[in-house]
Amino acid sequence: MDIITSTLARIKPVDTTLLQQTQVRLDNKTKPPGSLGRLEEFARRLVAISGQAEPDLSKKVIFTFAGDHGIVAEGVSLYPSEVTSQMVFNFLRGGAGVNVLARHAGAEVRVVDVGVDYNFGATPGLIHRKVARGTANFAKGPAMSRGEALAAMQVGLDLADQCKTEGIALVGTGEMGIGNTSPSSAMIAAISGLSVRELTHRGTGINDAALEHKIRIIEQGLALNRPDPRDPLDVLTKVGGLEIAAIAGLVLGCAANSIPVVIDGFISTAGALIASELHPHVREYIFAAHQSVEVGHRFMLERIAVAPILGLDLRLGEGTGAALAMTLIEAGVKILKEMATFDEAGVSH
Amino acid sequence: MDIITSTLARIKPVDTTLLQQTQVRLDNKTKPPGSLGRLEEFARRLVAISGQAEPDLSKKVIFTFAGDHGIVAEGVSLYPSEVTSQMVFNFLRGGAGVNVLARHAGAEVRVVDVGVDYNFGATPGLIHRKVARGTANFAKGPAMSRGEALAAMQVGLDLADQCKTEGIALVGTGEMGIGNTSPSSAMIAAISGLSVRELTHRGTGINDAALEHKIRIIEQGLALNRPDPRDPLDVLTKVGGLEIAAIAGLVLGCAANSIPVVIDGFISTAGALIASELHPHVREYIFAAHQSVEVGHRFMLERIAVAPILGLDLRLGEGTGAALAMTLIEAGVKILKEMATFDEAGVSH
Repeated sequence: MDIITSTLARIKPVDTTLLQQTQVRLDNKTKPPGSLGRLEEFARRLVAISGQAEPDLSKKVIFTFAGDHGIVAEGVSLYPSEVTSQMVFNFLRGGAGVNVLARHAGAEVRVVDVGVDYNFGATPGLIHRKVARGTANFAKGPAMSRGEALAAMQVGLDLADQCKTEGIALVGTGEMGIGNTSPSSAMIAAISGLSVRELTHRGTGINDAALEHKIRIIEQGLALNRPDPRDPLDVLTKVGGLEIAAIAGLVLGCAANSIPVVIDGFISTAGALIASELHPHVREYIFAAHQSVEVGHRFMLERIAVAPILGLDLRLGEGTGAALAMTLIEAGVKILKEMATFDEAGVSH
Repeated sequence: MDIITSTLARIKPVDTTLLQQTQVRLDNKTKPPGSLGRLEEFARRLVAISGQAEPDLSKKVIFTFAGDHGIVAEGVSLYPSEVTSQMVFNFLRGGAGVNVLARHAGAEVRVVDVGVDYNFGATPGLIHRKVARGTANFAKGPAMSRGEALAAMQVGLDLADQCKTEGIALVGTGEMGIGNTSPSSAMIAAISGLSVRELTHRGTGINDAALEHKIRIIEQGLALNRPDPRDPLDVLTKVGGLEIAAIAGLVLGCAANSIPVVIDGFISTAGALIASELHPHVREYIFAAHQSVEVGHRFMLERIAVAPILGLDLRLGEGTGAALAMTLIEAGVKILKEMATFDEAGVSH
């Protein structure tokens, strides 16, 4: 818990004076005040978070954390666990959705094994930080030990610190882990007190009977583990996942390092939720990429109090939504940096 | 009316077989079927509209049509009409919002004078197709003659034909015209039969009293001109605008030439609405960039039956939303062209 405490101590509120000063600059651009809507929010916040008047977004990274889930033994997913490691190789070869969309956004994808049930050996290109070969089945007991959860968070914290050293201007989160909608639903149910039924969706596309089964398994896991809603780390440990813990660490570390972080969909937001529950100012560093089709996602975003940027009915994960949102955030920064002012353009106002 | 009739005769429904075949290709990519939501729609539709299995989106153009409005004499806008020509120079120098966002999207901005109340002489870089020096005040009589409305539509039709010749793969619409929210509100009121009050917004940011005045003026214009809702060209002529007519022509011409067209916000959609009312298949070629803050915009999009791509609280116009939406449409096409299939990646499914 020491590393978490010391990270929390580094998190400061975002400078509201810089937000206001940047809005004044935006209001001098050749457009009616506020008429570029959320693009102006993106510009204001990037300046205030980074402390740079002209943020340089040339270095952008999306972290795709991979981990397996013991809960898959209960038949909650359409796909077998092997797909997690198979997709890791797909990420490393550049053929997955997140690779295509990150290239489009000018962002680099970094793939992190934090808990895949596969021996990657010395596979090049992969960031080797395996904490365990997947979680335990949370329908039968806790998904992780508290030590494992903290070790996985540490992975994210370390990567955020490294981003600061490298001068990465914008970080995105992503994940791959067959079965990881179940822990994400369990986590928001535990934290919000809402029923699993209200919060659970078909994941990758299961049918009615399978959905009923998934709800029952998650309810069983919550009843058995009784995670303490006042202790976010207890929720993460008992019903979470290794890649979700790493995302929680990454988001916390980005806040501590004053790096804006774009969270992807349902599973990434579960990680961000833990970080946000641990410190009230974390949310000021978060950009929510999109509103996922997953019903529990809306409740998470409301609890964190962040508004999604996109609504394209995405439900892939990996960091795909984060990549798309990065292109819009960068557009907002370009408005600030490249648009002419009324005086420069000789336009009446 | 001859050129309109001949253009309408060229418009065909989009090939549904190609839509289905493209979805099959998308379903072989390494992701759960349909999990990239609307990105998959963009890919399907780009293939079906263009007839190309691998659409090449390297050539993208946004047309920003400029025109002035006699209705400004009634005090419906915060800005004076001079701003229209001043902004045209800003577009030509690359300093406006649409320039910044089009560069971000890899699109070219082409600026068209179709009705600005200013003598541009031989200003280089501008497409000189002035039909009149602004419309007449539609609170006192028809905004245009039918001949003027058709001449302005012809400008858009000609530019669409030229895009076909040049191999432009994706066209965006935009506009600049101080006062042009008033004709747009009048047009959707005339066509939908809804009240002006329901459909009218603060435009660039006027106060309560000014909004009441704007509603009264638009109601007066509609009562005086009595545009025939069954004749879209009559609505366009009596309460529309020259740049709106050019956009109607561009959208119609894109449909006739099988070019996908991204319509920007409220005013562009007013133009697209006329095109869509003229032919039931025009909507199949339209991508609605965003949901504007303007309340009447939602009614227009529902009437055309297209779903907005973005919801970023934009209300600038110029083609800014179209530029942003283009980056997402291109992302969808890249998913189709660049993602690995299950077989290529060796992923179980």
